Amino acid sequence: MSVEVRPIAVTMGEPAGIGGEITLKAWRTRDASGLPPYFVVDDAARLQRIATQLEWDIPVAEIEKPEDAVDTFGNALPVIPLEVSAAVVPGCPQPETSAVVVSSIERAVGYVTGGQAAAIVTNPIQKKALYDCGFQYPGHTEFLATFADSDARPLMMLACEHLRVVPVTVHQPLREAIDSLRSGSIVETVRATVRALRQDFAIDRPHVMIAALNPHAGEEGAMGREEIEIITPAVEELKQAGYSVTGPRPADTLFHDRARTNYDAAVCMYHDQALIPLKTIDFSSGVNITLGLPFVRTSPDHGTALEIAGTGVADESSLVAALKIAARMAGNRTRSRLIFDD
Amino acid sequence: MSVEVRPIAVTMGEPAGIGGEITLKAWRTRDASGLPPYFVVDDAARLQRIATQLEWDIPVAEIEKPEDAVDTFGNALPVIPLEVSAAVVPGCPQPETSAVVVSSIERAVGYVTGGQAAAIVTNPIQKKALYDCGFQYPGHTEFLATFADSDARPLMMLACEHLRVVPVTVHQPLREAIDSLRSGSIVETVRATVRALRQDFAIDRPHVMIAALNPHAGEEGAMGREEIEIITPAVEELKQAGYSVTGPRPADTLFHDRARTNYDAAVCMYHDQALIPLKTIDFSSGVNITLGLPFVRTSPDHGTALEIAGTGVADESSLVAALKIAARMAGNRTRSRLIFDD
Repeated sequence: MSVEVRPIAVTMGEPAGIGGEITLKAWRTRDASGLPPYFVVDDAARLQRIATQLEWDIPVAEIEKPEDAVDTFGNALPVIPLEVSAAVVPGCPQPETSAVVVSSIERAVGYVTGGQAAAIVTNPIQKKALYDCGFQYPGHTEFLATFADSDARPLMMLACEHLRVVPVTVHQPLREAIDSLRSGSIVETVRATVRALRQDFAIDRPHVMIAALNPHAGEEGAMGREEIEIITPAVEELKQAGYSVTGPRPADTLFHDRARTNYDAAVCMYHDQALIPLKTIDFSSGVNITLGLPFVRTSPDHGTALEIAGTGVADESSLVAALKIAARMAGNRTRSRLIFDD
Repeated sequence: MSVEVRPIAVTMGEPAGIGGEITLKAWRTRDASGLPPYFVVDDAARLQRIATQLEWDIPVAEIEKPEDAVDTFGNALPVIPLEVSAAVVPGCPQPETSAVVVSSIERAVGYVTGGQAAAIVTNPIQKKALYDCGFQYPGHTEFLATFADSDARPLMMLACEHLRVVPVTVHQPLREAIDSLRSGSIVETVRATVRALRQDFAIDRPHVMIAALNPHAGEEGAMGREEIEIITPAVEELKQAGYSVTGPRPADTLFHDRARTNYDAAVCMYHDQALIPLKTIDFSSGVNITLGLPFVRTSPDHGTALEIAGTGVADESSLVAALKIAARMAGNRTRSRLIFDD
């Protein structure tokens, strides 16, 4: 049985940001970092101009269809062409480019759902610029969620080499995050996390650590009751359903070197509880992974970095990590399907 | 000008916990870890029994007064004797020993305020056992605060080799911590932090980083308004008063290797925001420091560890770090007073 090599589809992202630069820089490291073949849905002339201006000797080659990317990738950065008609000024997003930014995402999604690409890696977008042009979604994740199975709520996993974290609540004020915490959403998050660990990370019997909300895990109610009323009931429900979980544990004890060997992923109660340890451990190579989609999607864990766009200094490490993890996840998912289809 | 060497006073802590063991183990590392001379206010026979039972060749020597500790320290663990009349069972705190636990703290405080000891390092206590015997304070810090200048609220700094953090709110439910956040308490915390950095850490012009409360520092109000309404006004007030401060910054961006070089201490909005990065970076050598006291007090950043008491496996690293940092702080404080008194 041979598993066909399919390339990864990379989106343009905000053209005034660092997306073009890091996509070019990542390609340059392809041999050293063992990158899977990828193509970008972008304007080839624009990318070539960036490379020339920064005096990078990186050839860019238009391809007709994703399948061509695998052969091209060794010699040039493969590009499925889109035309950015407006003149792009690094650092200055313009409403005129919003349509092509969205089109790049839609095309990439089309390739991955159509089986021509193995996974999708999205470059950062400038949300406000898209909203102003009528884009209806808070971000990539919600837009991509429209392609998801109807019963799954897409979730964000952040991963680096030594840690995987999944926050139950994400982009909301901390006070609202606490108010919105429910046993049901904790159970749902753990289930989705376990599904991903099995299917995409090839971990047969994943163990999930569940963080407490309050200091010292609430000290039996003396410092908060969410552990007793919300988190522990979720943990009990999960255990009864056969999941291998531990918690709620004081969040400050979970992330040092030795503690991290005790679980495959930590489910956290709020954004910073998940992001502080991840970015403390590995600031530049963290990867954002969307769980619960019918295809593999990752992205670098940073924004458009408008303030340094055009200078060439942007660090491609997170995009490189996003490409590698996407390839590994897609391979695992394919194998897991082949096994179950047998 | 010669600065006289004064020993550090170490308290007994809960006798059923690991305090005795780590005090003995720390003494054994005195040369390798460059420990300052210290004595413990404890029952010498009890400590000798622990050493004998664990087959540790550690001599224990009663001394009459703190001054004797410096000469004794090279040959034996110096002990200012207190009698623990009840039989101690490791792992089982008993109400009968509470009085002597409190007495050890009072004696140590007496030595440091009387100028016979350079600083005080407290071994962990079992709060519940003390409460049951009428101890009136939530913990060491509050008890020691009764000796503080009347206008200062004692604060907790956590420090390891690569990071110092000071939480504005500490031991309360996360929801209440948010509710209780005030510009005034942030200002007060930063002022006390800067005072300590100058006086105890010999940093002439300290720079303090101030963490945001909400994800992405609230994204200009889209994800929470505490940054706009509470934290930024505090930062402005501090800047106008001449303090070197930065913030509020997204908490997940502050603690990686490079970020930590940008400040001398980070002031955090809640317990876990401060403790997660500290314990992720250095789980075993973190030190708890009380700011705002008229004397130097540190303690290991862990509890009584009843579950492993008596086995000898307890890690003395945090106590060793607490002793070393206390000596350095006391030295700096003495020098800073000599300078200002000139």
